[in-house]
Amino acid sequence: MADQERTSNQLQSDLAALDRFGQDANGGFTRLAWSPELRAVVDWTAERMRAAGLEPEIDAAGNLIGRWQAGTGKALLVGSHLDTVTSGGRFDGALGVLTALESVRRLREQGFQPARPVWVVAFMDEEGERWNSVMIGSRAFVGDEIPPEEAGRRDDDGVALEEAMRSWGRQFADLSNARAVDRVHAYLELHCELGPVLETEGIDIGAVTEIVGLVGLRVTLGGVTNHAGTTPMPGRRDALVGAASVIRGLRDRALRSGEFTATVGAIGSRPGGIAAIPGECTFSVDLRAPEPAGLLTAREQLDDLLSAVCAAEGLSASVAEVYVLDPTPLDPDIVSTISAASQDAGLSFRRMSSGAGHDAMLLARHVPAAMIFVPSVGGIGHAPEELTEERDVENGAKVLTETVRRLAQ
Amino acid sequence: MADQERTSNQLQSDLAALDRFGQDANGGFTRLAWSPELRAVVDWTAERMRAAGLEPEIDAAGNLIGRWQAGTGKALLVGSHLDTVTSGGRFDGALGVLTALESVRRLREQGFQPARPVWVVAFMDEEGERWNSVMIGSRAFVGDEIPPEEAGRRDDDGVALEEAMRSWGRQFADLSNARAVDRVHAYLELHCELGPVLETEGIDIGAVTEIVGLVGLRVTLGGVTNHAGTTPMPGRRDALVGAASVIRGLRDRALRSGEFTATVGAIGSRPGGIAAIPGECTFSVDLRAPEPAGLLTAREQLDDLLSAVCAAEGLSASVAEVYVLDPTPLDPDIVSTISAASQDAGLSFRRMSSGAGHDAMLLARHVPAAMIFVPSVGGIGHAPEELTEERDVENGAKVLTETVRRLAQ
Repeated sequence: MADQERTSNQLQSDLAALDRFGQDANGGFTRLAWSPELRAVVDWTAERMRAAGLEPEIDAAGNLIGRWQAGTGKALLVGSHLDTVTSGGRFDGALGVLTALESVRRLREQGFQPARPVWVVAFMDEEGERWNSVMIGSRAFVGDEIPPEEAGRRDDDGVALEEAMRSWGRQFADLSNARAVDRVHAYLELHCELGPVLETEGIDIGAVTEIVGLVGLRVTLGGVTNHAGTTPMPGRRDALVGAASVIRGLRDRALRSGEFTATVGAIGSRPGGIAAIPGECTFSVDLRAPEPAGLLTAREQLDDLLSAVCAAEGLSASVAEVYVLDPTPLDPDIVSTISAASQDAGLSFRRMSSGAGHDAMLLARHVPAAMIFVPSVGGIGHAPEELTEERDVENGAKVLTETVRRLAQ
Repeated sequence: MADQERTSNQLQSDLAALDRFGQDANGGFTRLAWSPELRAVVDWTAERMRAAGLEPEIDAAGNLIGRWQAGTGKALLVGSHLDTVTSGGRFDGALGVLTALESVRRLREQGFQPARPVWVVAFMDEEGERWNSVMIGSRAFVGDEIPPEEAGRRDDDGVALEEAMRSWGRQFADLSNARAVDRVHAYLELHCELGPVLETEGIDIGAVTEIVGLVGLRVTLGGVTNHAGTTPMPGRRDALVGAASVIRGLRDRALRSGEFTATVGAIGSRPGGIAAIPGECTFSVDLRAPEPAGLLTAREQLDDLLSAVCAAEGLSASVAEVYVLDPTPLDPDIVSTISAASQDAGLSFRRMSSGAGHDAMLLARHVPAAMIFVPSVGGIGHAPEELTEERDVENGAKVLTETVRRLAQ
């Protein structure tokens, strides 16, 4: 019991230490891929791994891997990511890495001898905000070919992905060297839900049965730029008015359908002057559905809307795919193990799907993979207000530790 | 006739020389207030003024004034502006400055002796895009107090207005030294229409009877940021969906009313990630009407829409005024002079209102002021495609020269 309290305090002090890495004035965290802020938290975590007896290494894709080289055969991989969106929450990603580290600390202190290696991982760029190079770390880890065109993509400050990689001493051409999935037995990831289901139902632990399919698009509408004061209202070809019709219409159709979600997160108009009718408007579209059919419906609804709006407003439309990921079922056996571990700890439990994409999607295509969810206060994610209560953090750490023990013995 | 051809060629070569000042790859011109690009064209125009026998000076507000110090009493002021919006057209502003210079050249070559001084002016920052400090040059020239808060406004690159002024050797605190309206007898401005009326009706010359009233607003809607994947569609408080409803609704109401125009030119969402529900959305609103009652109706319609959308979507709204300018009648006597000059030149003519704001609005509150419009091809303004045919440029120069002659004799 004294041991348990001490280690729980270590986890809590690790989580409190995150304050130092990319926190802004309103309490949000910004640690974008390949940034100095991310590097600082990666280096600190590597030190924490070393202190826990792991051998840390940053691989060719910027993934931090801390190895407990015990037993024989392929490794049990446990972790999540340390990067964030702009002004994101404290626990999104970091909670999974630090509870994975905590589980190793607890098992070592209990004298547990694993039958196979246990690796703690923090994948690079799960969020993908800076270059739309979403999950580049886990894509490289599982051996996916990273399209060469991603190398030259530029962030808002004009910095190319390959340039930022070099600031970490990494080369885009070497990404394939990060492939290590062949040495992995199974993957386990704890994450805060970032949604309202567990809190609303008063449940302690969720195990993810499948991750929704995602389609990320960049839509550009083209109209005719003109002067706001001299151009009569009839006959205008205003790209932003068209975008407004699409954004509003897509939301209404998603709400009615219930089969998919649709979100427009980013938008910009050109030329962007207060007195200029926008001749161009670009916006992002994020579509998600737990079933492949729902994703198809969502795409059809968007295409239908774009056609109707372009015809009505005299606009052209182009649609570029930023990411397309099919729905991903996770491993039912590990889900049962998580269920049993929760039950043994006296915690309530449910199976659920994940509306957010996670590195587990990539791993699940190669090895048995599963995720443990803990409640998010108010269901809030990707915002400074994101929070998981201390009690729920400890419940998650407990179930994760027990699941690691069962999978590694 | 030989003289006339030579001077017409001087005007055309002056207009062609604009190529060198802020032209971008797609043919648009970007010469924002207090920028190096604007300074270059101002310095070049000052040289052209000197070559035409004028005494050029850049005043405390960055206005370029070239003086023909002849006759006695107050000066006839003729001109427009040399700054542009981002990627604007060739003739917006510059045409009025260079035809004013041309009119002086022609009158001097004809041996005309003016009864009063004639000044050619290029006002600073008519467009007001960079800091929303619209028409700061003519505001200072007529003695309006420039609100001290404008000094610290920052452009998209974080440069404050007062800093950019210093790069021209000018101090924000000295703006009031630019007041010179008391030495002005009347103001005359030639401008391309930037709208479709003259071209559609096949008319050569327009004289502006009034300039529409303008209200420029910055609207911010506040909702709740959340994760796009984990937040069910019902219950979202998406600020961008709210903005879309307002933008679309405002356009529809302006179209139905016919009393006012409404344009949303700029928009941005926060946090702005592809997978984040926008918790904040800021957009500009530009409302215009020739009658004060139309402007009131426009404001009421916007307020009504904002209330309805905020109630339906669970959002908050705040509205900041960027500029408010009442409708401005111009001088009927000068309009008659322009009409007579057009008739004498065998050109078709009409009275019309201006949907765009111009420096003449500021001048008209202090001295008799008028504007000559020439046709814009396709009615296009504030875009690289803006154009006035060579024939229409010459027609305008001819009528402007004759009007200057009549007003200065």
